Amino acid sequence: MNTLKSKIRDIENFPIAGVTFRDITPLLADHILLQTAVQAMVKPFRESSITAVAGMEARGFIFGSLAASDLGVGFIPLRKPGKLPHQVKKIDYQLEYGSATLEVHLDAIQAGDKILLVDDVLATGGTARASCQLVEQLGGVIVGCSFLLEITALNGRKQLTNYPLTSLIHY
Amino acid sequence: MNTLKSKIRDIENFPIAGVTFRDITPLLADHILLQTAVQAMVKPFRESSITAVAGMEARGFIFGSLAASDLGVGFIPLRKPGKLPHQVKKIDYQLEYGSATLEVHLDAIQAGDKILLVDDVLATGGTARASCQLVEQLGGVIVGCSFLLEITALNGRKQLTNYPLTSLIHY
Repeated sequence: MNTLKSKIRDIENFPIAGVTFRDITPLLADHILLQTAVQAMVKPFRESSITAVAGMEARGFIFGSLAASDLGVGFIPLRKPGKLPHQVKKIDYQLEYGSATLEVHLDAIQAGDKILLVDDVLATGGTARASCQLVEQLGGVIVGCSFLLEITALNGRKQLTNYPLTSLIHY
Repeated sequence: MNTLKSKIRDIENFPIAGVTFRDITPLLADHILLQTAVQAMVKPFRESSITAVAGMEARGFIFGSLAASDLGVGFIPLRKPGKLPHQVKKIDYQLEYGSATLEVHLDAIQAGDKILLVDDVLATGGTARASCQLVEQLGGVIVGCSFLLEITALNGRKQLTNYPLTSLIHY
C-alpha cells in the first residue's frame, strides 16, 4: 500500500490551521492505481453477496460508484438534505463542531438488502455511523464498511464496532 | 435508449413548483443498465485519445468516475468552492437565479491534455460551459462533452457549440 500512499498528498493547515488534510486527487488521476485501490477495498467483501454499495456525497460517490461497478451491483447515493427528489428517510447526527444530515430515498433499500458502505476517508466516524444507521432504519443490513484511508488517531473505528471494517491506508 | 429512459423517474414540482425533475437514482440501482449507459456515453470519444475525464460535483462524480474507468484514464473532480485543498483555479458563472463557482486543482490539468467533460444532465448548460472554460484556462483541450440526458427545451447545447456533444436521452 506504500505505492497507494505515494498518491495521497499531505496538505498542511487545511481546512483549518493545525490540520493535515489527506488529498486523494493525485490517486484519482492515476487510473491504474485507482482501480487497484477500489479492487482492494471490495476484496474482503467479494464473497459476501453484497446487493448494493452505498456512498456518501460527495467523494463517496467516486469510490462508491467504482466499488459498485467492480462488484457488479447497484449504487445508492446518500445525500445532503434537499438533493434527493423522491420520498426520503433522513438522519441528523453530530459532528465535532455542529451537526449534519444525510438522506436516502425510501425505495432505495429493501428489507434484507446487503449493503457495503464505501467512503474515501474514515476520520471521526460520525458520518459513517449515521450512514449505517440510515441504511438499517430502512431494513438494510450493513455487511461491511470500506475506506481508502483511515486517520487512526481520530478513532472512528470505535463508532463502527458493529460492522466488519477495512481500510487500505493508515495515518 | 427507451430501456434507459424507463430507469429515469419523473418527479413533479421538484425542486420548485412547475418543474419536472428527472431522477436518475433508479438507473444507479441497475448496474447493468448503468454500465450500458456509461459505455454509450464514452463511445463517441473512445478513439479521441482522451487523457482524462472531468466531472462536476456531485452527480458528475458518479458518471465521470465510471466514464474514466471505462476509458482507462484518470478522473479530475471539478468542485464547489473551498473543497479542494491545494492551489486552485476558479471560475464564477451565472445561473438562472444567482451565481455559482467551480474550482479545479491547478496541477490537475497540463497544457494539451485532452479532456472529456461528463455530467448526468444537460439543462441550461451554464455549469457545463463554465467547466469547459475552466479546463481551457489551464491549457486543457475539451475533446467533447457527454451527458446521460438532455432537457432540450432549455437549449443548453447552444452554450457548448464549440465542442462535440453527445447525450443519450432527450426530454
